[in-house]
Amino acid sequence: MGTPKTKVPTPSYDKLTAHFQKISHFEHFSALGDWDQAAMMPMGGGQDRGDAMAELALHIHGLKTSDTLAEHLHGAEDESLSTEQEANLREILYQYQQANLVPGDLVQAKTKMAYQCENAWREQRKNNDWQGFKPNLKAVIDLAKEEAQIRGEAQNITPYDALLNKFEPGMTTAKLEQTFGGLKDWLPTLIQDVLTKQANEPKLVLNGPFDISAQQALGRDVMAFLGFDFNHGRLDMSSHPFCGGVPSDVRITTRYNEADFSSAIMGIVHETGHARYEQDLPQAWRGQPAGLARSMGVHESQSLFCEMQLGANPAFLRQLQPKIAQHLNCHFSAQELAQHYTRVNPGLIRVDADEVTYPCHILLRFEAEKAFVDGSLTVDDLPDFWSTQMQQLLGINTDGNYRDGCMQDIHWAVGELGYFPSYTLGAMYAAQCRFAMEKALGPIEALIDAGKLDSVFQWLREHIWSKGSLLTTDELIRQATGETLNGQYLERHLRQRYLGI
Amino acid sequence: MGTPKTKVPTPSYDKLTAHFQKISHFEHFSALGDWDQAAMMPMGGGQDRGDAMAELALHIHGLKTSDTLAEHLHGAEDESLSTEQEANLREILYQYQQANLVPGDLVQAKTKMAYQCENAWREQRKNNDWQGFKPNLKAVIDLAKEEAQIRGEAQNITPYDALLNKFEPGMTTAKLEQTFGGLKDWLPTLIQDVLTKQANEPKLVLNGPFDISAQQALGRDVMAFLGFDFNHGRLDMSSHPFCGGVPSDVRITTRYNEADFSSAIMGIVHETGHARYEQDLPQAWRGQPAGLARSMGVHESQSLFCEMQLGANPAFLRQLQPKIAQHLNCHFSAQELAQHYTRVNPGLIRVDADEVTYPCHILLRFEAEKAFVDGSLTVDDLPDFWSTQMQQLLGINTDGNYRDGCMQDIHWAVGELGYFPSYTLGAMYAAQCRFAMEKALGPIEALIDAGKLDSVFQWLREHIWSKGSLLTTDELIRQATGETLNGQYLERHLRQRYLGI
Repeated sequence: MGTPKTKVPTPSYDKLTAHFQKISHFEHFSALGDWDQAAMMPMGGGQDRGDAMAELALHIHGLKTSDTLAEHLHGAEDESLSTEQEANLREILYQYQQANLVPGDLVQAKTKMAYQCENAWREQRKNNDWQGFKPNLKAVIDLAKEEAQIRGEAQNITPYDALLNKFEPGMTTAKLEQTFGGLKDWLPTLIQDVLTKQANEPKLVLNGPFDISAQQALGRDVMAFLGFDFNHGRLDMSSHPFCGGVPSDVRITTRYNEADFSSAIMGIVHETGHARYEQDLPQAWRGQPAGLARSMGVHESQSLFCEMQLGANPAFLRQLQPKIAQHLNCHFSAQELAQHYTRVNPGLIRVDADEVTYPCHILLRFEAEKAFVDGSLTVDDLPDFWSTQMQQLLGINTDGNYRDGCMQDIHWAVGELGYFPSYTLGAMYAAQCRFAMEKALGPIEALIDAGKLDSVFQWLREHIWSKGSLLTTDELIRQATGETLNGQYLERHLRQRYLGI
Repeated sequence: MGTPKTKVPTPSYDKLTAHFQKISHFEHFSALGDWDQAAMMPMGGGQDRGDAMAELALHIHGLKTSDTLAEHLHGAEDESLSTEQEANLREILYQYQQANLVPGDLVQAKTKMAYQCENAWREQRKNNDWQGFKPNLKAVIDLAKEEAQIRGEAQNITPYDALLNKFEPGMTTAKLEQTFGGLKDWLPTLIQDVLTKQANEPKLVLNGPFDISAQQALGRDVMAFLGFDFNHGRLDMSSHPFCGGVPSDVRITTRYNEADFSSAIMGIVHETGHARYEQDLPQAWRGQPAGLARSMGVHESQSLFCEMQLGANPAFLRQLQPKIAQHLNCHFSAQELAQHYTRVNPGLIRVDADEVTYPCHILLRFEAEKAFVDGSLTVDDLPDFWSTQMQQLLGINTDGNYRDGCMQDIHWAVGELGYFPSYTLGAMYAAQCRFAMEKALGPIEALIDAGKLDSVFQWLREHIWSKGSLLTTDELIRQATGETLNGQYLERHLRQRYLGI
């Protein structure tokens, strides 16, 4: 795969692939260190881990900016490469350019500060300790701003665009403002219409407690049903659910609530979407930039496809229902579960939000990040900004509740500005994929009822997972769905599911 | 600490310490990768992990043999250093010399092969699959022999001495043969005498099942009683109990048996001994060679002190008894536990052996390793060698039982030849420490009964743990006990405890 039939020597390209293979070995330990810190590491190990992660980040940065690369990149341009090799070369060049934008000492300082801030945040959030968290957050945001400035200047783009590009290559603030701006036109009305419609629907009363280890066993059962390969991955607990690890060993986590199994289980369904993407990335391109997941937005589209397009589908819940009954010894009907999982309920917490109000949480964070970077918002003013926005977007008061307000997410604590838009991009890509898939295969509901869930995954494997980063995001989505990003499919999906129109 | 009162510039020494601090950051990930592989990693992740570990080992090897080090080592010789800095320089030089003995490609090949062999071994051992294991073991042993040859020639010592020195700096085959030779004179008779004495003593019947999670909770309770710091460490499960991680985050494991809690719990006591040593290494020397544990023999002396000198002490078992009763809801008397934990029972498995027959398992492995290295034993002949030796030493037949015979240990599977003698050296050092400690503090039994267990740990902290590698092994033991290694204390201990003389 990826090799032309007549083998022409490609010495420069070969040196590049060997070098990036080596980089992937070191990135293996970044991934392991991150997972372990969140899922396993005791607090007291944080300082040493942070120092070690910073050293590793600096080393990887050094490898990505190595002097010899420019020469090999130049040499490889004149070599006879297959289309896939060309794509890998494009991705290698992109990584090289991105790494060269930022000086190594800033990389190291950011990594160290992020670890320090995150470790403290885990306790501070529990204690609603905004005053304790604030100085750390300031330091992290200052470093992120410095990075944005440097990256922006070097690429001749705005600082915030430069941050977006770290997670979503090619994305711009202008494009996002246009796409997300569309949301603002129809979403508030939609939320109100759905709330009115659901006002008199019965609510599921979760009569727990539900044993945590039984919830775990149920989770593993659901993962297996969704095709998760346990020979190449694990399920664990962490305070913030995530998917980490490497494609040959994908580690997902969730958090459990004894009183309510529903969020832990749907969290697992979500992370399993991420995991399947990783586990099914192209084998032939393992360890190469072309073999990586395309972008954070596309990654999120796979998790949201699993959670929202599949997980909240009535047919999926008909499959889930007996598993819940068996593991948790409780007997909700599939109909009750479907109502529960499509209940719209404006709330404080982004990760617990339903799919209708979720984009509001992202709009808030998108506005805050832009304002941090252009200097119109300071960390001191963040709680007020948060309260005002939550009031406007969802009619919720967050005054004084920092832990469920501006301290709820890990992203800023670790200096990841520019990531949040990926969530709503993901929801849009997921809806767009669903309509394209159903055009080819018929309704997903019918497929699941017919025991053909695998054909859904086969479509995703063929059109998304197996492509890695061989195509650009726009081209990937265009080849899969017939057009580039189009936010209208999300609107169509939400109107269909929540208003039946 | 470690800095002379009048600060004289030490530029070369400072460069060395910065360089070894960096090395310790990469070694952090070796430790994490090893722990994770044994305690967490799914089988399918093994290939990538092995490749990544090999890359990391090569990188660390490169750092330890870096061209600039010779110059700084030379420069540091003329600098004005404190006694402790001199000791650190001695350890830096030793690490540099040891690393320079072996070419990087052999380091990488060994790491890769060890990971491959270990991963397969985990399944093969379960299946008693000697034929499957044999070719892997051959490859690993061949690489270990190559390493021994290269190391021996360069240091002008025998190949097996060169392997011993990796784990026990300064140890020689001659010294071991003399010390272990002494064992052969008195141990077989002692075993027979003890078996005769215990023949009619009542045996504890463990009326399980004992819930695994209850055993885990009991284990954590015992760890806390022994002063394990859970802010800087964890307890997990693995098929082969071990202590790993880094001093700020020490990871111990055990394995559980539903039918019999006693080995899991005493395994935890053993690993807690290792862990306390690591957690109490000198803070001021963290990340420097002088801050590392002294040797594998000294390390094992701390775990065996915990397990044998403390754990099997009747006073300790009087403390353990109510904890067992509480967690496992079973009511054995302290007297019954003491009989159980001092029961001598020649058996197949080294890690399950009592302290009286344990040295026989080491003698067998010591003889086999020497014979592998000098070529008088091949992997093909290992099962026969094993059977013959087990018959001679313990009167046990192991024919055809590979999983509980020559496939039981992980050490050879990962290419660690020269390590096994450390276990019996540890038992000897532990007994020697106990007699020295009791000379100063009075009997341990009385200390525990008086609630002064901490004074035992205080003695170990002062004489062993806080010294790191600031002293040579001989000097460490001499300062702690008044003399260098003396195997007679182990004999005295065993005669006292098992024959009452």
